[in-house]
Amino acid sequence: MRVFSGTSNIPLADDIAKYVGKSGISAMLRKRFADGETYVRIEESVRGCNVFLIQATSNPTNDNLIELLLMIDACRRASAHQITAVIPYYGYARADRLVDPDRRRREALTSKLVANMLSTAGTDRIVLVDIHSPQTCGFFDIPVDHVYASAVLEQYICEKELDDIVVVAPDVGGVARARAFAKGVNDAPLAIIDKRRDGHNTAKVLNLLGEVEGKTAVIVDDMIDTAGTICEGGKILKERGARQVFAMATHAVFSGPAVERLSSGVFEEVIVTNTINIPPERRFAQLKILSVANVLGEQIWRVHEQNSR
Amino acid sequence: MRVFSGTSNIPLADDIAKYVGKSGISAMLRKRFADGETYVRIEESVRGCNVFLIQATSNPTNDNLIELLLMIDACRRASAHQITAVIPYYGYARADRLVDPDRRRREALTSKLVANMLSTAGTDRIVLVDIHSPQTCGFFDIPVDHVYASAVLEQYICEKELDDIVVVAPDVGGVARARAFAKGVNDAPLAIIDKRRDGHNTAKVLNLLGEVEGKTAVIVDDMIDTAGTICEGGKILKERGARQVFAMATHAVFSGPAVERLSSGVFEEVIVTNTINIPPERRFAQLKILSVANVLGEQIWRVHEQNSR
Amino acid sequence: MRVFSGTSNIPLADDIAKYVGKSGISAMLRKRFADGETYVRIEESVRGCNVFLIQATSNPTNDNLIELLLMIDACRRASAHQITAVIPYYGYARADRLVDPDRRRREALTSKLVANMLSTAGTDRIVLVDIHSPQTCGFFDIPVDHVYASAVLEQYICEKELDDIVVVAPDVGGVARARAFAKGVNDAPLAIIDKRRDGHNTAKVLNLLGEVEGKTAVIVDDMIDTAGTICEGGKILKERGARQVFAMATHAVFSGPAVERLSSGVFEEVIVTNTINIPPERRFAQLKILSVANVLGEQIWRVHEQNSR
Amino acid sequence: MRVFSGTSNIPLADDIAKYVGKSGISAMLRKRFADGETYVRIEESVRGCNVFLIQATSNPTNDNLIELLLMIDACRRASAHQITAVIPYYGYARADRLVDPDRRRREALTSKLVANMLSTAGTDRIVLVDIHSPQTCGFFDIPVDHVYASAVLEQYICEKELDDIVVVAPDVGGVARARAFAKGVNDAPLAIIDKRRDGHNTAKVLNLLGEVEGKTAVIVDDMIDTAGTICEGGKILKERGARQVFAMATHAVFSGPAVERLSSGVFEEVIVTNTINIPPERRFAQLKILSVANVLGEQIWRVHEQNSR
Amino acid sequence: MRVFSGTSNIPLADDIAKYVGKSGISAMLRKRFADGETYVRIEESVRGCNVFLIQATSNPTNDNLIELLLMIDACRRASAHQITAVIPYYGYARADRLVDPDRRRREALTSKLVANMLSTAGTDRIVLVDIHSPQTCGFFDIPVDHVYASAVLEQYICEKELDDIVVVAPDVGGVARARAFAKGVNDAPLAIIDKRRDGHNTAKVLNLLGEVEGKTAVIVDDMIDTAGTICEGGKILKERGARQVFAMATHAVFSGPAVERLSSGVFEEVIVTNTINIPPERRFAQLKILSVANVLGEQIWRVHEQNSR
Amino acid sequence: MRVFSGTSNIPLADDIAKYVGKSGISAMLRKRFADGETYVRIEESVRGCNVFLIQATSNPTNDNLIELLLMIDACRRASAHQITAVIPYYGYARADRLVDPDRRRREALTSKLVANMLSTAGTDRIVLVDIHSPQTCGFFDIPVDHVYASAVLEQYICEKELDDIVVVAPDVGGVARARAFAKGVNDAPLAIIDKRRDGHNTAKVLNLLGEVEGKTAVIVDDMIDTAGTICEGGKILKERGARQVFAMATHAVFSGPAVERLSSGVFEEVIVTNTINIPPERRFAQLKILSVANVLGEQIWRVHEQNSR
Repeated sequence: MRVFSGTSNIPLADDIAKYVGKSGISAMLRKRFADGETYVRIEESVRGCNVFLIQATSNPTNDNLIELLLMIDACRRASAHQITAVIPYYGYARADRLVDPDRRRREALTSKLVANMLSTAGTDRIVLVDIHSPQTCGFFDIPVDHVYASAVLEQYICEKELDDIVVVAPDVGGVARARAFAKGVNDAPLAIIDKRRDGHNTAKVLNLLGEVEGKTAVIVDDMIDTAGTICEGGKILKERGARQVFAMATHAVFSGPAVERLSSGVFEEVIVTNTINIPPERRFAQLKILSVANVLGEQIWRVHEQNSR
Repeated sequence: MRVFSGTSNIPLADDIAKYVGKSGISAMLRKRFADGETYVRIEESVRGCNVFLIQATSNPTNDNLIELLLMIDACRRASAHQITAVIPYYGYARADRLVDPDRRRREALTSKLVANMLSTAGTDRIVLVDIHSPQTCGFFDIPVDHVYASAVLEQYICEKELDDIVVVAPDVGGVARARAFAKGVNDAPLAIIDKRRDGHNTAKVLNLLGEVEGKTAVIVDDMIDTAGTICEGGKILKERGARQVFAMATHAVFSGPAVERLSSGVFEEVIVTNTINIPPERRFAQLKILSVANVLGEQIWRVHEQNSR
Repeated sequence: MRVFSGTSNIPLADDIAKYVGKSGISAMLRKRFADGETYVRIEESVRGCNVFLIQATSNPTNDNLIELLLMIDACRRASAHQITAVIPYYGYARADRLVDPDRRRREALTSKLVANMLSTAGTDRIVLVDIHSPQTCGFFDIPVDHVYASAVLEQYICEKELDDIVVVAPDVGGVARARAFAKGVNDAPLAIIDKRRDGHNTAKVLNLLGEVEGKTAVIVDDMIDTAGTICEGGKILKERGARQVFAMATHAVFSGPAVERLSSGVFEEVIVTNTINIPPERRFAQLKILSVANVLGEQIWRVHEQNSR
Repeated sequence: MRVFSGTSNIPLADDIAKYVGKSGISAMLRKRFADGETYVRIEESVRGCNVFLIQATSNPTNDNLIELLLMIDACRRASAHQITAVIPYYGYARADRLVDPDRRRREALTSKLVANMLSTAGTDRIVLVDIHSPQTCGFFDIPVDHVYASAVLEQYICEKELDDIVVVAPDVGGVARARAFAKGVNDAPLAIIDKRRDGHNTAKVLNLLGEVEGKTAVIVDDMIDTAGTICEGGKILKERGARQVFAMATHAVFSGPAVERLSSGVFEEVIVTNTINIPPERRFAQLKILSVANVLGEQIWRVHEQNSR
Repeated sequence: MRVFSGTSNIPLADDIAKYVGKSGISAMLRKRFADGETYVRIEESVRGCNVFLIQATSNPTNDNLIELLLMIDACRRASAHQITAVIPYYGYARADRLVDPDRRRREALTSKLVANMLSTAGTDRIVLVDIHSPQTCGFFDIPVDHVYASAVLEQYICEKELDDIVVVAPDVGGVARARAFAKGVNDAPLAIIDKRRDGHNTAKVLNLLGEVEGKTAVIVDDMIDTAGTICEGGKILKERGARQVFAMATHAVFSGPAVERLSSGVFEEVIVTNTINIPPERRFAQLKILSVANVLGEQIWRVHEQNSR
Repeated sequence: MRVFSGTSNIPLADDIAKYVGKSGISAMLRKRFADGETYVRIEESVRGCNVFLIQATSNPTNDNLIELLLMIDACRRASAHQITAVIPYYGYARADRLVDPDRRRREALTSKLVANMLSTAGTDRIVLVDIHSPQTCGFFDIPVDHVYASAVLEQYICEKELDDIVVVAPDVGGVARARAFAKGVNDAPLAIIDKRRDGHNTAKVLNLLGEVEGKTAVIVDDMIDTAGTICEGGKILKERGARQVFAMATHAVFSGPAVERLSSGVFEEVIVTNTINIPPERRFAQLKILSVANVLGEQIWRVHEQNSR
């Protein structure tokens, strides 16, 4: 067994490698040439090995994705026995359907394109974490192991023993996810924020479906990107009388003004996992980072052990 | 141009053929042998033709699906120039993700399997109508034209000039669809039914998020199968004071007790389209069937014309 | 090793599972939804396993075929190490060539289409029994193990120690098969029935090539479908002086009037195997069913053992 | 439209080119280097053209096959619009099934391998003539146009107005073919030669099924290779009293002692077509060569014209 | 016909579009989201169109490559008739073989990987310019049109009417290219720089094969990256008595210190083409940029016109 | 493990088999039918085995290539676990790029075509020796192990302890190869022969770059075909004062007049390997054949052992 890591999230990869009994990730040269081209060289033999390649395709998404494809190609050409791409955060996951409101359908289905590229490069199996839409697994014809980091998040909330929780979906696209989470948190009630433009398309109207007054609201999403939607949601929950508001998501994309918005005091806590590496300078007081190293390590172990039985 | 039809929905196919200027569907022999095997023979030359094959893969789904695959294979081997499978109702659309609640992932992703079979058989292009999840289009690497029959439904509701509409999602999985519909109906407000088991998992609890009292409720779904969920929803809406309730869906699957339930008086009207053929003996007083022949015919025309430009 | 069975022939599958040392077939949920869609869920872990999926694609052919494809897809996505589809009776085997007498070639080559579907779904290997034409193995690019159930039939006839056997091909398409059988039965002589339409295409003429008078005739075919041809053959053999007539075939398709025809007294015995399950109510006095469980079990064992060496 | 020819049968290719209105085949350089490697260079632009490549893969089969693959590759890379491989004689056609009598299945299915190679090289369509087994068409997933040269042969026999014809299959593998021919020749009766080894496997026994005495026997096969079987057949027919014997086959493979055997006086006439080029020095008095140029030219014309409609 | 351009070289794309008779490139939205993901939307219908997508995969190579793949995917899904990727500079071209001096072969063959990705995404054809190794064309199975920008460079040198030219290969890998160029410049003589490490691997030794004294030396390469090799070469040529030295290459990669080095006075002129866009701030006095817009426009025109014949 | 050999180089195969501990190559029937068709039958079980197929695709290239494809197909269909094609000499290696000087690109890329055929036939891995261009490895997407026989050649030269060596590239295409060799021979200096046509294209001019006077010249190439270039090179080196000249190449193609030319006294020694079998009657006094059996055996051992770890 070999565990290699791309450049995107080496601390997580290292923790995973340790979980499966290694002293750390295996040696691999990663390089960017002066002209911007990526280069990798595997520094340990992989011939006949069961290889796990850990790489979140987070920002810079294209560079991380290409680096992962190079790792796969190198392992395949070096005669690895089986290659598993472990992708804690799957970039372009949201580009899984038509987003053009005019429905002219002249966009790329990038999430599928990425799936095809991973398959073509030669990976034998994929491990994903809390993927944006469950249908994404069907973009692959190779086995996909879907790991649920949300269990880590649920457990964290349950252990806090908060009173009177209401789980809130920040928009209509996230209702199923929020409800699944609510069932895991003592079958908490649900609320939904329905954002619309007004008649002249100039101002936003935030409708809230469900009761939040006097409750502890937990907004649940799969990822926090620029944090605009979740922060607006947090504010309206407070206006409607929520006692305190928690923000919770698996993937801490944290683009542009995200850190500034999240640390501005709306939220009691902002709870995420380490599927994406958050450098120290982007952490803030309310931020709580939970680790998915164990659940991923466990999954890798299961893939490895049961294949050799 | 040739328009052929499988056995599942010949009336619709005929209307489509007429819309594009034909006298009717092209001649094709469809047969079932005594041993249950399906047989088709194209009775007009398709060499060099732009061929459209219309087949809803509704019940009996497997027979209709295999028949469609045979039609594709026959046309390909007979040197058709381009084959478009027009599938008004795409069976197995709901089998697009994990449904096992224990997440052991030992099920088929049948919707993807069907997509692969259609591609392997040799169709060049697919036309779908109001597919269950938009990600399904990504199960194909050939062009998919997604036709929105919901426009026909929206228009019908708008023309009724009902007062004080609230659009209702019958479960949390249908919220995004309901909201899209609500925007098309003068930006109507939204309500959501959240069905749960109680603590001992013995009784159902139906929570209603949003206001319906005194309003005209329109429950919106993509398909009505056994009609259990939508009828329960209709009843709770009435209990919560809705003035009248409409049921609306694109695909009239109508399995098992569906007709009995739908005609039992809960609904003012049950509005569906003809993507699935409903034989006269299964129609009932409150049923309103709208035709998608024109929108499909228009799409076929667009495919045909613009390719020849 | 795991042995699963589809719904078509569970008794045979169970016997095979026992032959290879199991207490019976592995657990799998098979379901038909109210709308006619098929569903399967594997109830034992297959990760890293050598999986054998037993399913005859007999009537209802399309349902059995789709169920088999779902089983393959589920096993592949659940990370089975190797999947072998064991297909005791391969439906659509006769659709392996042009049958339209006008040679316009606008039919499906369904047998090849089925082969492509099985490969696309992800099976690694196929086991077939007495396939209609030997070329069918070439429809696959994966390994095909062709098991000869005819050995079981030959042995049965030899053990009967019948005098003066003549082996009869019921039509010109079956001559090679009949001759191979004849060589296995003490090099018995051959006779052939050549059925034609008369000049005005209104009446059939049955020509018999070869000597049958006073002999024990054994009509040999690969399958008995509606039993029309074989019964006509039996009658003409008697007219030409055959002392007694046996009907023999590997696959007991038995469609439509088959049981009635076969039990009407023409044949001394009707000898078939259990590649297709024959329910008790369709069995009759002259019917003799031989089991292929051992030859299939042996083949499975060989596939399993030698791969693990 | 462009018509190119490999080296195997230039006279036929030239006749075909003329049939479709060309002055002759298009210019192409064919070369063998000193080290035995084949080289071709297309000497006319094929960009956007409908290209027909005529090559019989007759002896030297491997060289002719590779040359054809090179022609396909060159046309594809040079941006031909559509490539049709016209293969008057398809070498390796008999290697379409298991021939090892011990059934250990460790042989190549060369006919399928050749089909895969032609598809991989990039041909869009195949034209075959009187292929050995009709199932071979299913080795391809691209359109196959099967041309029946047997019509030319049937017509020739009919025009001879021979009395009292019996059509003879030279072995049990050729019965279906012989019977189809018999139906085309005024529904002539059938006879079959069944060759066996005797008990000690040392001597051959030729059984004859059917009546030939005083008749004009026409032995029909798809190809004549070393002519052993057909000459033995001719002799036994004479022994059994046939008045005269004709040998007839589409493909004149004529290997080893074939010419010597065929010209030794057994046959009244040896009737073949020009699917394989027979150089003048291998022709003999009884040989009658019929041309398939028109039927192939007609087929090419149909492919070309109907695609451009 | 539609001509779209990615972000990498819009001025060249615009010139090409004008050459083929358009007013400019077709409208397309290109966007980078805050999280680094790329997005494109085609703003004109491409249904049934012959589409040309112009994108140099120069620095930032990964972003430009992914953007090109998205453009291809979008056009394919929007039913373009034929997609041609026009890639004036093909990034990763040098990663076409083993570079690890220890030959352990644990690297990616990135150039092939990129070729596979382009094919998988759905492009029908590729246009390349002066590709690093001619074998790269064989990485594709779709048609590749290789355009020779070197003709533009040869013509420029010839028109200068320089006396006594010697063409210099800057390293042993570039000898074949230099010689081909030399033949185009009045069959000029050749010189070669052979760079080695000395015995202790500490210092470089530059050997010069061939005569340069008193001559006009033209160093020829396919690309100038950091310009280290070519500048060292220029210096040694001057040391060995060359009267003046020109640097010449098709692709102006110009990474890191390239501009500083090239403008430091070694070269009389640095002659490149515009396959890669050089922004004004990176241009310098000795730089001469020749345009390949006409040769690419001509090639596109040829692809378009001849396909429609 | 099984080691089979095609007909092209049985002595080498036998040596390899012995190196890996076998008593010799495994049993396989190889046959040519009278009509020129190739036939192989594997005579030992390969089910579940790691199979190595040794075949140089030397003259007769097409026959040897097809035989290798048949061996692969037979092993795949007989359920071999893993198939490695070991190709000591890869025919058509030079057909890896455009050779038409007019660049009209209407040739086959035969080397790629062969790679595709090997992959399609079902080999899992390839072992090549000193391939003509390193990019050829990228023609495959399966693992390619490239064995360097040049190490054997380098060692031989080094052990001769020749004084004052200069390594000579016989043409500009071989400079990189010659330089790599020179580095392995105590960093010897380099010389290059640049052959041109004179102004009227009637006579050849051989330019020599680099110093050879009084030195021991070793001309290095990957293969010697007709030996024209290398013999011309040998003569000019002597004219320019080389003390003695060695010819050296991995692959002894030796076509047409090669033996005559090489044995005419120009060379002190002609050093080659046994990748291609040289029958006794084609050997000559100056010929020295080195064996690659050990380096190939070692590579096979590595493939076999490390895969089973």
